[in-house]
Amino acid sequence: MKLAVIEGDGIGREVIPAAVKVLDAFGLELEKVPLELGYTRWEKTGTAMSSDDLETIKGCDAVLFGAVTTVPDPSYKSILLTIRKELDLYANIRPIKPLPGITGVTGRSDFDFIIVRENAEGLYSGIEEIGPEFSWTKRIITRKGSERIAEYACKLAKGRKKRLIIVHKSNVLKSDKLFLDICRQTAAARGVEYEDMLIDSMAYSLMMHPERYDIVVTTNLFGDILSDMCAALVGSLGLVPSANIGDKYAFFEPVHGSAPDIAGKGIANPLAAILCVKMLLEWMGEARFQIIDEAIAHVLQQKIITPDLGGTASTMEVGNAVAEYV
Amino acid sequence: MKLAVIEGDGIGREVIPAAVKVLDAFGLELEKVPLELGYTRWEKTGTAMSSDDLETIKGCDAVLFGAVTTVPDPSYKSILLTIRKELDLYANIRPIKPLPGITGVTGRSDFDFIIVRENAEGLYSGIEEIGPEFSWTKRIITRKGSERIAEYACKLAKGRKKRLIIVHKSNVLKSDKLFLDICRQTAAARGVEYEDMLIDSMAYSLMMHPERYDIVVTTNLFGDILSDMCAALVGSLGLVPSANIGDKYAFFEPVHGSAPDIAGKGIANPLAAILCVKMLLEWMGEARFQIIDEAIAHVLQQKIITPDLGGTASTMEVGNAVAEYV
Ligand SMILES: CC(C)[C@H](C(=O)O)[C@@H](O)C(=O)O
Ligand SMILES: CC(C)[C@H](C(=O)O)[C@@H](O)C(=O)O
Repeated sequence: MKLAVIEGDGIGREVIPAAVKVLDAFGLELEKVPLELGYTRWEKTGTAMSSDDLETIKGCDAVLFGAVTTVPDPSYKSILLTIRKELDLYANIRPIKPLPGITGVTGRSDFDFIIVRENAEGLYSGIEEIGPEFSWTKRIITRKGSERIAEYACKLAKGRKKRLIIVHKSNVLKSDKLFLDICRQTAAARGVEYEDMLIDSMAYSLMMHPERYDIVVTTNLFGDILSDMCAALVGSLGLVPSANIGDKYAFFEPVHGSAPDIAGKGIANPLAAILCVKMLLEWMGEARFQIIDEAIAHVLQQKIITPDLGGTASTMEVGNAVAEYV
Repeated sequence: MKLAVIEGDGIGREVIPAAVKVLDAFGLELEKVPLELGYTRWEKTGTAMSSDDLETIKGCDAVLFGAVTTVPDPSYKSILLTIRKELDLYANIRPIKPLPGITGVTGRSDFDFIIVRENAEGLYSGIEEIGPEFSWTKRIITRKGSERIAEYACKLAKGRKKRLIIVHKSNVLKSDKLFLDICRQTAAARGVEYEDMLIDSMAYSLMMHPERYDIVVTTNLFGDILSDMCAALVGSLGLVPSANIGDKYAFFEPVHGSAPDIAGKGIANPLAAILCVKMLLEWMGEARFQIIDEAIAHVLQQKIITPDLGGTASTMEVGNAVAEYV
């Protein structure tokens, strides 16, 4: 098993070393392949990621990724998007689950759902035209793309409460009817109970009634927006991990970005990155992955927490404490 | 002054009569022109709105609108979208402000901001192709469209805290850079302080730090999603009004939809519709518009509230109580 480790920019360079400590504590046979990629490198060299780098990544089985800075500069394309595309990581999985003793903005902890975000098409098609008077982007929905994400969501639902909610905007985007229809058909064929909701209503409902949901399947950008929003339910963007899954590769990244405002201070919360390690272990079939939940519960109880959660611990102190428990 | 009154479908038929009671209480010289339009009519007659209806609307100065049911049926186009387009209602204004004694999911009431949603382009372009294997929608950003919404947002900002936040996704949608640049330039030219934020981060930040914002300007669908989400901050979708403004006409509608699940029971909350009347009066230059805030505060204090707020009053009871105070 070969794991590419990409810290990226900003706090990626802080949370990933902490997460790697935790991973190392499992003592697995695993070759780590560090790669320096991202915006910082682009600024220095004009290349955020070379084709050699991409080949190196393709020679690995999985990727642990921190964060990269993205900018609107049309000549800079996020390596995150390139990697998602090149490795065909079509399912972006974002579990929204409270951590013990931490409550988010609503004060509730009675929810536990997973956002399954289609990760390859929609508004991320890259098909666009940019001009000074007029610009456009094509939002693409395909049968193939919708089918495979629907299948993935149903597979997850079957291992849980067998309940799926399909989120779309087909009252305005008639093209979303394709997505909706395919998700409905797939759910019916797989014996998964389903409902659907408009994205605007869903944004409201997730805040009002987060306990109602189990598996939420949606298109690319809607999943992006909902998952950040739901981090407020959990308490902090520093607590939400994600997995980008394809048929061959898997790629794990915290939902948070490179956070230039707090980068370099050693105060970034590494728990999202550590939860990425948990998702990686689960994906690898490593039975002990749940120890990470225990370890995090222990560390939270001991109040070894970063400033975003009201504590004073550094990124590395949290990482070390979790690793030690493991 | 001529006001078209369109109840529409579902609870639109309940909240608008209650709001009209309140409007009538002001004793203004105002001709009301009732129109029966929407999905119910489409089902019966195959036409949701005729071109004659549209001419009647264009003969009015403003519209008070309830809600219409929308469906993914490609042959049914929402009359709401048609009217927005035909009257060139390019600015969708959604004030997010707590009502006295009511707190939303976060328990806070220290926020007061306005979402200024571009209302004519973006993903609502209507330019799409639908097929069984492949569908797409074009998301359009134009200089003209961005300029006029930016001007509108700056005008509002100047009457308030002079602070603008521009919400976009230009790290992925390079076409959004046009929107971002124009908003920045307009704000600079108008002497309005500005910042910008990515839509995903903004969804998170509005939940975490709603007190930070004053005027939020964004593209069409992002504004749609954020405003529904923010109704959870206020406490209920039944509390958030909106105005669709153009250079010639104005159109007022509650943010909530036709809510088929509770329609016909007389329990829908009319406060959003009543707050639409307040926005209408303000738009007309009627100085007494703020009496509505007072009246609502009074009625809330007396616990004359609908079931969504934990009360037992009917839609009409709330409407009558507000009207009486006025
Ligand atoms: C950084 C950005 C390109 C990315 C996205 O939009 O997908 C991020 O927001 C995410 O959710 O992983
Ligand atoms: C009903 C629908 C077409 C509409 C929209 O998407 O704009 C609604 O959600 C709104 O926000 O007014």
